Amino acid sequence: MTEPRLAQQFAFLLEAEKLKSVTRATPIADNSRRENSAEHSWTLALYALVLADQAAPGVDVNRAIRMLLLHDLVEIDVGDVPIHSGNGAAHDAPAVQAAEAAAAGRLFGLLPADLGPELRAIWTEFEANETPTAVFAKSLDRVQPVLLNHLGGGGSWLEYDVTWPQLETRVGGKVARGLPRVWDWVEAKIRPWFEGRGR
Amino acid sequence: MTEPRLAQQFAFLLEAEKLKSVTRATPIADNSRRENSAEHSWTLALYALVLADQAAPGVDVNRAIRMLLLHDLVEIDVGDVPIHSGNGAAHDAPAVQAAEAAAAGRLFGLLPADLGPELRAIWTEFEANETPTAVFAKSLDRVQPVLLNHLGGGGSWLEYDVTWPQLETRVGGKVARGLPRVWDWVEAKIRPWFEGRGR
Repeated sequence: MTEPRLAQQFAFLLEAEKLKSVTRATPIADNSRRENSAEHSWTLALYALVLADQAAPGVDVNRAIRMLLLHDLVEIDVGDVPIHSGNGAAHDAPAVQAAEAAAAGRLFGLLPADLGPELRAIWTEFEANETPTAVFAKSLDRVQPVLLNHLGGGGSWLEYDVTWPQLETRVGGKVARGLPRVWDWVEAKIRPWFEGRGR
Repeated sequence: MTEPRLAQQFAFLLEAEKLKSVTRATPIADNSRRENSAEHSWTLALYALVLADQAAPGVDVNRAIRMLLLHDLVEIDVGDVPIHSGNGAAHDAPAVQAAEAAAAGRLFGLLPADLGPELRAIWTEFEANETPTAVFAKSLDRVQPVLLNHLGGGGSWLEYDVTWPQLETRVGGKVARGLPRVWDWVEAKIRPWFEGRGR
């Protein structure tokens, strides 16, 4: 039987499996290995579900969950660019953003013509970080690695010799934008780690 | 500052990180290692998003996504019980189900008193496999490992010496219940693998 639509849907889903082999800078909680971008995406969708009561007015939590499921797929082509790499400048570099846009074109282009643009629009909204839903989702994406680094005894903070002012600039302000009470809570928890190292 | 609610939410979220260390029988797509239950859960939520048009009337896709994000958390305490282990009987054994119920009590019990029962009810609905939404979600949970085993050259079918009639009984019928067209498509793709091995 010919099922061209299902063939397109599964071409995308089987390609997405590759996100399990994209490694991030952050260790998993027991510090035994680095996190991959697929399991990171699961964690963030769970964060959106559990922290929904922290969302600002106007946030669509179901759409935020979809954003977080999709947000890192472009890393299949581009890899993960750690937030503290390149002295904090690599993540938002124009060349990275152009490569990610090309990856989005390739990946969402595998889908049927009605569905691909719909899912790409969710990813584009996340990247633009302007709507309340995107700001909420992006704040979750910034805060989870902080907690994993703290659980793992430093993680990518050690690798990139991150100071407290750098963390506040690169991460804290962005978390606080969507989740101010969460950032206050996390700051109280992690700041002693930086003070203890004189950073 | 005291934020007991946030402390409960993060107690749950940080405990959930342990799902990344629960290993499944199925290999990831390039056959380099076994899949873990956290990244498996991400894949299934993505399946629900991409295959939403295959859902029967009455399916709430947003709730299905939540189910699939939560469905394997009990494995943090119980581990993954492969579908083909114990000659296909281990997965639904009463002792496993009792242990999973106890795990659900412990894990969802970490959450605030309004949120824990709400999320546990989503998990219970999935396990009961009666509502259209649960049947859809359960069908996705059954079909994705089939495709990974096929991509990986056999995976857990080789480990447990699975025959085609066994796959039809343990998996095919359950996939077809929620996703009949998907099972037809998958069957056409994978059946030659079993025929080629005389199984």
